[in-house]
Amino acid sequence: MLRHVFTYNQTFPLEAGGSLDGLTICYHTSCEQRGDRPVVWICHALTANSNPEEWWDTLVGRGLLFDTDKFYIVCANIIGSCYGTTGPTTYPKAPLGNFPLVTIRDLTRAHELLREHLGIEKIDFLVGGSNGGFQSVEWAASFPGRIANLCLIATGAVVSPWCTATLEAQRMAIKADPTFAEAKDARGGMAGLAAARSMALTTYRNYEGYCRTQSESNPDFMIANRAVTYQQYQGQKLCARFDAYSYYSLTLGVDTHNVGRKRGGVEKALSGISAKTLCIAIDSDILFPVGESRRMAEAIPGASLEVITSDFGHDGFLLEHDQITKCIKKHFDIF
Amino acid sequence: MLRHVFTYNQTFPLEAGGSLDGLTICYHTSCEQRGDRPVVWICHALTANSNPEEWWDTLVGRGLLFDTDKFYIVCANIIGSCYGTTGPTTYPKAPLGNFPLVTIRDLTRAHELLREHLGIEKIDFLVGGSNGGFQSVEWAASFPGRIANLCLIATGAVVSPWCTATLEAQRMAIKADPTFAEAKDARGGMAGLAAARSMALTTYRNYEGYCRTQSESNPDFMIANRAVTYQQYQGQKLCARFDAYSYYSLTLGVDTHNVGRKRGGVEKALSGISAKTLCIAIDSDILFPVGESRRMAEAIPGASLEVITSDFGHDGFLLEHDQITKCIKKHFDIF
Repeated sequence: MLRHVFTYNQTFPLEAGGSLDGLTICYHTSCEQRGDRPVVWICHALTANSNPEEWWDTLVGRGLLFDTDKFYIVCANIIGSCYGTTGPTTYPKAPLGNFPLVTIRDLTRAHELLREHLGIEKIDFLVGGSNGGFQSVEWAASFPGRIANLCLIATGAVVSPWCTATLEAQRMAIKADPTFAEAKDARGGMAGLAAARSMALTTYRNYEGYCRTQSESNPDFMIANRAVTYQQYQGQKLCARFDAYSYYSLTLGVDTHNVGRKRGGVEKALSGISAKTLCIAIDSDILFPVGESRRMAEAIPGASLEVITSDFGHDGFLLEHDQITKCIKKHFDIF
Repeated sequence: MLRHVFTYNQTFPLEAGGSLDGLTICYHTSCEQRGDRPVVWICHALTANSNPEEWWDTLVGRGLLFDTDKFYIVCANIIGSCYGTTGPTTYPKAPLGNFPLVTIRDLTRAHELLREHLGIEKIDFLVGGSNGGFQSVEWAASFPGRIANLCLIATGAVVSPWCTATLEAQRMAIKADPTFAEAKDARGGMAGLAAARSMALTTYRNYEGYCRTQSESNPDFMIANRAVTYQQYQGQKLCARFDAYSYYSLTLGVDTHNVGRKRGGVEKALSGISAKTLCIAIDSDILFPVGESRRMAEAIPGASLEVITSDFGHDGFLLEHDQITKCIKKHFDIF
């Protein structure tokens, strides 16, 4: 994938109020010129970047489902992130903890600006998992006719109270670290971020997944250190590549996800989607249970539902590439 | 229930090493003298106290399942807690963050000291939910013949990796608050404790429980504030009655729970339990899934398993009093 930067110099109004003085959008494409290739647009999840060859390396690349030779693949880093697009660490007017609330609908409007900039009339295939699915379903509901084919993986049409509760617990952990409020620089709140990521991971995986990978090998164990050190390692791993302010901002955005807002409710909004739609749920996902995908599949005209099996819960959207490939090939003939 | 204090003046050796210079154990009984009443011993969960009439008020009291008129009911506050028994806030020799590691097996040995002090030969009925179940199953495995009837609710024989992972995430949140390490007094780490409790609550309840109680009423909501404020409220509520050092210490104790330690494994340890045993699991419990109760019921000779239905996950052990009463009456004729 090739990295690009798109600079938008006009005011970008925000749904919750206020605006951003322009936008910088970092994005990747599979080639310089689209030519006559079908457009595959990938929306990334909470802490990912705009290069899906890095975080979806079993699905995106030469000869894979999302073949970088066959398709014009586009992925854009979202507002509020720290991978090149305008966010808390790069917006001088309202830096760090002062970055304004950006809704999922705002993220979608930013994708629309980039689409227009790239001269893309219709998106042949739009796909997103988790938060990427939030953006995808919101985009399809906001601009009917723009998306030909839509695949929503391990996601929902509206944020659930349990999801918000886990995110608020994470934000409370970040705020428990006073260096977050001090905000001397972008490294503030790192101890809180590590705790937040550690919490998040228990919702991305599940009971069975941890049993399978983090069980003690010694039947006489005195204290369960394997899971303990795994949590600490995962916390540190995110701290090495992300920052607390972007994480905090993005989780607030998650809590605004409501495809039905000012559209007469979720079902009515979904009924306006014209794309051929496939919802893929993961049977062991505790963060986005199968019911959320079923709700979308029932409300989106002609949509289908596939439930894949995984020991890894929500993280299955990153790991179960064989099943995801099979499902998408079965439902969409452009692959 | 009547409050008492038992002071043990000898050295109390700890399983993981070191010792405590004596013990103060705060406990409650349903009456002054046992007389010929059957003994019902209740083990409390992580942050509860020794008065089950407060936290199990629909099960313990006059005319209820655990009838304070009919039975000699005993409940003791556990080591490491802050409700009158020796713990981080009351042990001058190793205060606050320096309190030693106390295992579930240690808690059981403290219960044994109190039992002896009370002149109880045999416990007619031992019951515990969650961490109280840890103590109960450990006690029954450690002292075969001591317990006539045993009821283990929403618990397991060994701590699961997912449980430990959620607790380590909570400890990371507590440590992200530097006032915890500063340890100026027992109020250190309160912001961290609030975040930890907020996180814990998402594992005590579950997705469906939050949908039922914390959904937004306004279909046009901009941000999901109801679940957010609930999490903050629950965090503050624990901070008003508990402290971060006791919480931290007790969660480390949870991570030592392994009834099979130095007994040839979990199944072998459970096979030595002679009490008539009932395991009660909650169908929606994500912290102690039904499989943990089934494992105990299959390994404890003659044990039975009942699965109750609840929208409230693990917290069902505090809320589903009708189903718990029915199950216990069905299996134990002393009620």
